[in-house]
Amino acid sequence: MKEVMIVMGSASDLAVMQAAATVLSELGVEWELDIVSAHRTPQKMFDFAQKAHTSGCKVIIAGAGGAAHLPGMIASLTPLPVIGVPVKSSNSIDGWDSVLSILQMPAGVPVATVALDGARNAGILAAQIIASQKPELLNRIIAFKQDLGNKVKLMSEETKRKLSQDMGSKNG
Amino acid sequence: MKEVMIVMGSASDLAVMQAAATVLSELGVEWELDIVSAHRTPQKMFDFAQKAHTSGCKVIIAGAGGAAHLPGMIASLTPLPVIGVPVKSSNSIDGWDSVLSILQMPAGVPVATVALDGARNAGILAAQIIASQKPELLNRIIAFKQDLGNKVKLMSEETKRKLSQDMGSKNG
Amino acid sequence: MKEVMIVMGSASDLAVMQAAATVLSELGVEWELDIVSAHRTPQKMFDFAQKAHTSGCKVIIAGAGGAAHLPGMIASLTPLPVIGVPVKSSNSIDGWDSVLSILQMPAGVPVATVALDGARNAGILAAQIIASQKPELLNRIIAFKQDLGNKVKLMSEETKRKLSQDMGSKNG
Amino acid sequence: MKEVMIVMGSASDLAVMQAAATVLSELGVEWELDIVSAHRTPQKMFDFAQKAHTSGCKVIIAGAGGAAHLPGMIASLTPLPVIGVPVKSSNSIDGWDSVLSILQMPAGVPVATVALDGARNAGILAAQIIASQKPELLNRIIAFKQDLGNKVKLMSEETKRKLSQDMGSKNG
Amino acid sequence: MKEVMIVMGSASDLAVMQAAATVLSELGVEWELDIVSAHRTPQKMFDFAQKAHTSGCKVIIAGAGGAAHLPGMIASLTPLPVIGVPVKSSNSIDGWDSVLSILQMPAGVPVATVALDGARNAGILAAQIIASQKPELLNRIIAFKQDLGNKVKLMSEETKRKLSQDMGSKNG
Amino acid sequence: MKEVMIVMGSASDLAVMQAAATVLSELGVEWELDIVSAHRTPQKMFDFAQKAHTSGCKVIIAGAGGAAHLPGMIASLTPLPVIGVPVKSSNSIDGWDSVLSILQMPAGVPVATVALDGARNAGILAAQIIASQKPELLNRIIAFKQDLGNKVKLMSEETKRKLSQDMGSKNG
Amino acid sequence: MKEVMIVMGSASDLAVMQAAATVLSELGVEWELDIVSAHRTPQKMFDFAQKAHTSGCKVIIAGAGGAAHLPGMIASLTPLPVIGVPVKSSNSIDGWDSVLSILQMPAGVPVATVALDGARNAGILAAQIIASQKPELLNRIIAFKQDLGNKVKLMSEETKRKLSQDMGSKNG
Amino acid sequence: MKEVMIVMGSASDLAVMQAAATVLSELGVEWELDIVSAHRTPQKMFDFAQKAHTSGCKVIIAGAGGAAHLPGMIASLTPLPVIGVPVKSSNSIDGWDSVLSILQMPAGVPVATVALDGARNAGILAAQIIASQKPELLNRIIAFKQDLGNKVKLMSEETKRKLSQDMGSKNG
Repeated sequence: MKEVMIVMGSASDLAVMQAAATVLSELGVEWELDIVSAHRTPQKMFDFAQKAHTSGCKVIIAGAGGAAHLPGMIASLTPLPVIGVPVKSSNSIDGWDSVLSILQMPAGVPVATVALDGARNAGILAAQIIASQKPELLNRIIAFKQDLGNKVKLMSEETKRKLSQDMGSKNG
Repeated sequence: MKEVMIVMGSASDLAVMQAAATVLSELGVEWELDIVSAHRTPQKMFDFAQKAHTSGCKVIIAGAGGAAHLPGMIASLTPLPVIGVPVKSSNSIDGWDSVLSILQMPAGVPVATVALDGARNAGILAAQIIASQKPELLNRIIAFKQDLGNKVKLMSEETKRKLSQDMGSKNG
Repeated sequence: MKEVMIVMGSASDLAVMQAAATVLSELGVEWELDIVSAHRTPQKMFDFAQKAHTSGCKVIIAGAGGAAHLPGMIASLTPLPVIGVPVKSSNSIDGWDSVLSILQMPAGVPVATVALDGARNAGILAAQIIASQKPELLNRIIAFKQDLGNKVKLMSEETKRKLSQDMGSKNG
Repeated sequence: MKEVMIVMGSASDLAVMQAAATVLSELGVEWELDIVSAHRTPQKMFDFAQKAHTSGCKVIIAGAGGAAHLPGMIASLTPLPVIGVPVKSSNSIDGWDSVLSILQMPAGVPVATVALDGARNAGILAAQIIASQKPELLNRIIAFKQDLGNKVKLMSEETKRKLSQDMGSKNG
Repeated sequence: MKEVMIVMGSASDLAVMQAAATVLSELGVEWELDIVSAHRTPQKMFDFAQKAHTSGCKVIIAGAGGAAHLPGMIASLTPLPVIGVPVKSSNSIDGWDSVLSILQMPAGVPVATVALDGARNAGILAAQIIASQKPELLNRIIAFKQDLGNKVKLMSEETKRKLSQDMGSKNG
Repeated sequence: MKEVMIVMGSASDLAVMQAAATVLSELGVEWELDIVSAHRTPQKMFDFAQKAHTSGCKVIIAGAGGAAHLPGMIASLTPLPVIGVPVKSSNSIDGWDSVLSILQMPAGVPVATVALDGARNAGILAAQIIASQKPELLNRIIAFKQDLGNKVKLMSEETKRKLSQDMGSKNG
Repeated sequence: MKEVMIVMGSASDLAVMQAAATVLSELGVEWELDIVSAHRTPQKMFDFAQKAHTSGCKVIIAGAGGAAHLPGMIASLTPLPVIGVPVKSSNSIDGWDSVLSILQMPAGVPVATVALDGARNAGILAAQIIASQKPELLNRIIAFKQDLGNKVKLMSEETKRKLSQDMGSKNG
Repeated sequence: MKEVMIVMGSASDLAVMQAAATVLSELGVEWELDIVSAHRTPQKMFDFAQKAHTSGCKVIIAGAGGAAHLPGMIASLTPLPVIGVPVKSSNSIDGWDSVLSILQMPAGVPVATVALDGARNAGILAAQIIASQKPELLNRIIAFKQDLGNKVKLMSEETKRKLSQDMGSKNG
């Protein structure tokens, strides 16, 4: 396995979950992605989760929607940190079911939950976890965050320029 | 196993879940109860769910609170009907997490969900399922429902009597 | 009547509810479907619900939206198991009214509630209930569940293949 | 029957529902109260609702909690105006189920819903409905409303006096 | 004024509120409609509400969205029954604000609340209130409700016919 | 009138609303408090709101619970800034009705809403508004905020000391 | 800086937030707008908030969506009144996260919260705050509010005329 | 600093947050705890968050309630993984504000959110993160999880024994 394993309950979650892979590639972290369904392939989920920590995997990202049991069940079967991505799937009640069935794990079995459809943040968080043993990755994360700020500053300039055209000279 | 297996994630759910056992005994249906945690004893859950339908069990009642994965995971592992009881446990957000993580199962893997803390109804529903092959049990359920009505009628008499004492002769 | 009766409050619910009929046909279970409105044809509902258990019906599936009283009222009038399908109809507040007015039945009168718009699961659950007296149906359900897993495995292969084309060789 | 019939699903709703009777007595409107359960005495509910408009009843007040079907089912069976009181019963999810299953009636069958546990307002509303044909009752309602204002004015005086004692002379 | 006054906070509510007028016309009840905003024309609202009961009006229907104060403020100023229609306007949070700010009136000042966007039911309810003094209107309401049932029965026939074409002869 | 007028719908709101008065006194801002009910004393509310800006008042704080119309109605009648305090009164559904019926005002008529039961913050906000023309008050607010920080620093010291006693020397 | 500073977390909030600028221009209040992100440019936010009150700014309007920390963090760093606009951004759960993370500030640090996407009201509120020291601005606000009423009266005329054409002469 | 820094907005959060420290001590991970308020000590928060990754800290646990900005603001200022604990504080609306203002972070700045009041899980998650570079800690976590299972098995034995005493020999 790669350092970060990205699993999801259905191929329909891929549109959301691919963002985790994209940002991991941006940060130079190796990943691998698979479809593993808690409810339709429980044995595959069991086998995957139980062997992950002995196969080179350091962090697992799991995304699911509706009654989303995949992240919590994987967390019950591995000592590795598990990041859960609530997906606002078509069978979800505005995402509330996805969020609550991933977030509200009982004491003893945490899932590190990110925002609804927040797969990009799941990827960043996985990189931050791995960076604790890799100084050069920590530096890439520091640079990544500075870049976030720089983009906002460019956005600020552009917005002010556009606004002064649209609304006259009122914006000081 | 007995015809109805009642499982729950923690002994703290027993105060709610015992009502299922009580009503099954009232209706003359055999049951057995155990603590099986999806998150803390996943292997026990797997073994239990996979062998239930070959061990004489006809219906499984599963209760859990918070991110309640037990009913759905058992449903993924057995061809038997699974009844889910959302428990308003101390770590629950007003019961919404328990309800949504049991109810909102994806297509293919149903859980027959009852009301929050509705273990008594789970027991009645289990009896109704078993009654489809047992006419005498169906008759007991018919009598049980008539008795519900009779109790309301007694309650009606008593309420009217009490009210006419409290508020004078206004209640006709 | 057929073994499974599928009723709904309005023809507008048919787009959702037909999935129950479809899966019952896949599993070889006989069904019959009708429009029965708790609020607009209460007498028809009464007559239907009171005679179902003496007419060969074993399970009733009832779907409704908004203040959805049909499943619960049928459950009050029959000793048979009643499966409720909350429908996210146009007059519903995001489906919450449909879910809560079907799920939250008082002690004594259960409704086996499935997910919002979860009619396919209602059909599977009805088949599981009937299978308790029909070993060959239980076997079909076991095969049905294995098929769910097989489809996920094919989906997994296809996703990995597609991803390795899209994103290069990163997916291990 | 009396002009206003007050029904509720269980004697446990009486603590809330009695406020409707109290205010009707204050306003000089005759009432009668009974326990009628949609789910446990459906036939009694049917009989009651179908004959109310030919028995002298002008308005029906119905209170229930959880999956509260009583007000809506009575409304389906009578041409009279039906006032629904959502009760925050012990089996309710913070009252949301009671509110939504009474309020969200489909087009064609209205229920005049009042606030959660708002039985006093249900009584006032019933009196307002009856007052449309009784000028002297309309006058009593006008006086009742003036009295509400007078009590607030007394409350205002008393609060200011108490406050100036508590906090010194700051309150002007 | 006419017997039923229909007011709303904005012309944008007309698309929803016109249904009240339509059904009143169907039932032969006279109505009049106006735009009255609690927040933008408070004095007009005051004048309207205070004189309604002396101007021939018997029932007021008021619709509004968001922080919907119009129904409750009118109710504070008139002894007449006020029916509130929560409108899911564009500035509403899924309709919850509209529903709660109309429904949850304090003791003493009821608003008869109908479903979100339930203006048609508001019209029917207004007719039911007026019918208490008009036997011929009560008869029209009885006929109206029978017609609701007849339409469902036709819908039932048509659905069964269509289904037997679509899915073969399975529907018995 | 004083610079800040504090009004509320009922004396039962005083336990919450008094915190606004207390903090205004701490900051040296004059205030006056009264009971004004939108629903029970609408004329008093009208008179109060219409004359406030010509009577020396600069800011109005209004608190109410349930269908809380007082802040929004006052805002419709005055050009002054109105601060709304949602009160979690006994007739409220967990405070959601209070919050939404104050916050969700239509375009044109703002209410500056603070947190549920956040009367202390309403007082501070009123002082901040008045401080825009009073440099010495702005300085008191600056000092007030520094004091908030100082209290947290003391709390930090005390917590660390207590913790090192409780849990041994682990807290560095 | 201008008297009113309008800041927002992202250029994508501009479509909502521009309404604050527009109404301030209508009312003759000077404003300036910038992109300041609590999470991506925390140092810029710090610098901006700490110097605003010494740079001529009187009121700050801050808009953000999702976990919206910008208004509250600015409020923690300035003695000026801060108006928060919850934005229903694409990453928001129906706006609830935006509303609650702006509204529910702890005691000591108020944010004057307006409705979801209520930027126009934020602009009006800012003008009302500044008007406490500028009588001519207060007069413009009084005129602005009268204009709101006048527009409703025109709308009322037009609606009645249109309706009498559409539905015949029924509207009196 | 220690490997795990635990911060919270107020000493009143300590009752919840201490569970993180307790489980870290059980697992042999060093921690340090402090009160840092985003809203009352923003400079202290800034200084703490900016220097943590150069001071030996590997993971930050931050707990807060209401409009809970502490975890997200720290995440904006550090490249380290930040674990957020939503606290159901007294000023919270049933915990929803705490959950949403921590969970719903924008893309680029993740917070690893655990369940409401889930500080024990925050501690376990922190240990799992650190364990990625410490095999002996990973082994302790594996043992910790086995121990969770063993406790459930003891609980199961005890429950069965107690139940067979309470309810006779029915439990098989």
